[in-house]
Amino acid sequence: MAKLKKQPRPKAETPKGFRDYFGAEVTQRAAMLQAIAEVYHRYGFDALESSAVETVEALGKFLPDVDRPNEGVFAWQEDSEGDKPGDWLALRYDLTAPLARVYAQHRNDLPTPYRRYAMGPVWRNEKPGPGRFRQFYQCDADTVGAPSVAADAEICAMLSDTLEAVGIPRGDYVVRVNNRKVLNGVMEVAGVLDPKNPDNFSAERGIVLRAIDKLDRLGLDGVRALLGEGRKDDSGDFTKGAGLSQAQADVVMGFMQAKRATGAETVARLRELVSGSAVGGAGVDELETIADLLAAGGYGPDRVEIDPSVVRGLGYYTGPVFEAELTFEIFDEKGRKRQFGSVAGGGRYDDLVKRFTGQEVPATGVSIGVDRLLAALSAKGRIDKDQAGPVIVTVMDKARMADYQAMVAELRGAGIRAEVYLGNPKNFGNQLKYADRRASPIAIIEGGDEQAAGIVQIKDLVLGARIAQNATLEEWKERPSQFEVPRGEMVAKVREMLAGQAE
Amino acid sequence: MAKLKKQPRPKAETPKGFRDYFGAEVTQRAAMLQAIAEVYHRYGFDALESSAVETVEALGKFLPDVDRPNEGVFAWQEDSEGDKPGDWLALRYDLTAPLARVYAQHRNDLPTPYRRYAMGPVWRNEKPGPGRFRQFYQCDADTVGAPSVAADAEICAMLSDTLEAVGIPRGDYVVRVNNRKVLNGVMEVAGVLDPKNPDNFSAERGIVLRAIDKLDRLGLDGVRALLGEGRKDDSGDFTKGAGLSQAQADVVMGFMQAKRATGAETVARLRELVSGSAVGGAGVDELETIADLLAAGGYGPDRVEIDPSVVRGLGYYTGPVFEAELTFEIFDEKGRKRQFGSVAGGGRYDDLVKRFTGQEVPATGVSIGVDRLLAALSAKGRIDKDQAGPVIVTVMDKARMADYQAMVAELRGAGIRAEVYLGNPKNFGNQLKYADRRASPIAIIEGGDEQAAGIVQIKDLVLGARIAQNATLEEWKERPSQFEVPRGEMVAKVREMLAGQAE
Repeated sequence: MAKLKKQPRPKAETPKGFRDYFGAEVTQRAAMLQAIAEVYHRYGFDALESSAVETVEALGKFLPDVDRPNEGVFAWQEDSEGDKPGDWLALRYDLTAPLARVYAQHRNDLPTPYRRYAMGPVWRNEKPGPGRFRQFYQCDADTVGAPSVAADAEICAMLSDTLEAVGIPRGDYVVRVNNRKVLNGVMEVAGVLDPKNPDNFSAERGIVLRAIDKLDRLGLDGVRALLGEGRKDDSGDFTKGAGLSQAQADVVMGFMQAKRATGAETVARLRELVSGSAVGGAGVDELETIADLLAAGGYGPDRVEIDPSVVRGLGYYTGPVFEAELTFEIFDEKGRKRQFGSVAGGGRYDDLVKRFTGQEVPATGVSIGVDRLLAALSAKGRIDKDQAGPVIVTVMDKARMADYQAMVAELRGAGIRAEVYLGNPKNFGNQLKYADRRASPIAIIEGGDEQAAGIVQIKDLVLGARIAQNATLEEWKERPSQFEVPRGEMVAKVREMLAGQAE
Repeated sequence: MAKLKKQPRPKAETPKGFRDYFGAEVTQRAAMLQAIAEVYHRYGFDALESSAVETVEALGKFLPDVDRPNEGVFAWQEDSEGDKPGDWLALRYDLTAPLARVYAQHRNDLPTPYRRYAMGPVWRNEKPGPGRFRQFYQCDADTVGAPSVAADAEICAMLSDTLEAVGIPRGDYVVRVNNRKVLNGVMEVAGVLDPKNPDNFSAERGIVLRAIDKLDRLGLDGVRALLGEGRKDDSGDFTKGAGLSQAQADVVMGFMQAKRATGAETVARLRELVSGSAVGGAGVDELETIADLLAAGGYGPDRVEIDPSVVRGLGYYTGPVFEAELTFEIFDEKGRKRQFGSVAGGGRYDDLVKRFTGQEVPATGVSIGVDRLLAALSAKGRIDKDQAGPVIVTVMDKARMADYQAMVAELRGAGIRAEVYLGNPKNFGNQLKYADRRASPIAIIEGGDEQAAGIVQIKDLVLGARIAQNATLEEWKERPSQFEVPRGEMVAKVREMLAGQAE
């Protein structure tokens, strides 16, 4: 037999744009999702978990003129069955498209309105970049089948409660609300939307929507240029503008700058701007109603406010639009102060299930960027990056493993995170190095002498590390970092020391 | 412009073999995973979350002679970059293959031994069947880099604690332990394994391993036939046997039936069977050590026992093998009593990262079938299939939505799950139908008369439903199912009624 050619070893690597999460990174996210789910549940939302895989047809990303589904999703074709070609399947790219499919599929069994929350990973087949991954978490809540803006107000209140529940105090965030209908009214007044001939000026409106959606990046001057003749960017590329006159552009610019000192003044200013437009007036009414409903529930402008400069998503949503922004400053990787910015967004979209059923179903919802929210709490020092390591029972005599297992069973029985050292016990230094790497708070030592005397040594590794780091801390030096206690008092002493370390 | 041909509507369907999970199905699983994670954490295991997507190369399923990766996984090829063909990527089919990749990739940064747990969905590209889905949850814990059987004993103790933590009382489960080395010793004694020429008889050994792995399905007679000449199944197909003599087969059969009344007697019987085999003796020693270590920690034979009839996985694992079985009976879908059976399994496997690094790294671990465990608890009535519905604040006057929002905000502020009815309020019957569909415990009604009088009506929907179901319950009829209380006492009364319903 010919010798098999040696296969090269496979590379131990995550695929490009994916990463692994370890320890506290996993448990902190789980705890945050749990805290969010509790608020959502209290608001009457029910959990939904759809599968990661959907048909490309249901996701709506299939381009009939190409072999492969659209860019942006991870997709593959099932094996054919006989003559029938296999379905194209894909990983979900968000949690809204699956909600549309679920609602259309199960609508006869679901209550109306249907309040649901969903949390889990989504996948994007995009070029990864620094801090941008192809798998990330979303955490959504949506109300399907409720046309009333009371549903939008509820989502805003819930978002406010959620941020406080995960540890963002009042004052450090604000939920800002705007309305697409007001923008439509503004465009009507500016003369680029004619309710009688809705197809007219659609090219201009497209440019206006894209322009204001870029307010964050381009600033007011950049948007203004795009509303008029056009804009040359830093690389010299020219983007053609909407061709609005000065007066027309003023109306649109006025919309984005309509925020006043109080909600009532902002509403009054918006009414002025959309004067004469029915849809614009309806949009302002909706904003006013939302503010009233929220105020009645205790969600005043210190928590939720009307802000016409919220422009992100106005092109996508059909009514109210909301965004949660963290208002505190952090230091970026270059040490510069900056606002933390947006951590959640949402709004009303009324064509959720129309693709499937032909029926228009109103829906409104929010999506929280869990990873950004974790990063914010971490930047503010509001969550520990490290988790408590286990108490380590060291192995002084391999033959006495049963005694050490009994010790660790006692500790665990008392609810204390603990383990026996399971590596090669020959070198005691290695055991302490392992304890260090695990961030162990305490090591327990019971050799032959201790056993004979009925005692154990308990070493405070937190204090030990502090003393080693800072030899000038005289008062610490005098504090003992190792205790000798009778074997029967081990659990009580460990508990006492852990409580002391937590102070 | 030619009119666009109307596209057919997409089907609102999950892909074949996938399903949606609603409400309590999601939250019960989350609660169980959380309970399991707490035990794993207390044992010193750290969380790991790798991405759902791996390279096919890392998963090890690539067949070099075919275009597409192996059957059994969902895989696709990345776009090529210039001349370089794109990588093949795939969804993970279990949590062990990713652990191997993670450990090989990050081994210099991880402690040794590395205890990790992981929980999440895995995907199998298999033919779905009733109750068999192509996405399901696994929940694993593994210790990498610890050659000592103390690591195996710890996994067994942890499995026992975990089952009790999720609600399986002692006596309703048993963790059974066997050892592949003992089977190797048995095969040595039977003359189908020669330590000096390990390649001899490999075909026979393969048949023996496959035969005993099917003990559950074929029974002792079926296995015996496969150890000898072979076996004809019900359809008439003949499977060639290992060709063992009567005496040789007796040795192997004796192994599977070696369980005695006590662990010590079982160990003694196994020692007899492997007499003369070094590896067999070592395996029996390991079983004895595991039993001793467990007994020292309080895990006696009522929780973990040595049982040589555990044969599943013996072909895969290299040392100790364990399985958790639920010992109570349930009724299957046809009303027949049957044992619930296995809910978790694991063992020692020493070639985890060898594919990547060439280095042999010892590892041992367990995988819990979360969905089966949930089904078991549900079959025993130990978890509620339903979750508590929200208190519904009905809408009697659309113009007074702010008042209703204030009521619901008060209830939520008191930690009570509550919502305002957000559908069309015109038909009050629809509001009560909605409350029924949501399994609401309580509805709150405040019309114009109530508002004028400063009161609210609070309707006990649980009692109402009971009365409606069973008109003969005289004592219930006399209990009021609706209360009139001052508006200021609403929250207190709701709380009192919820507490009463929970009794």
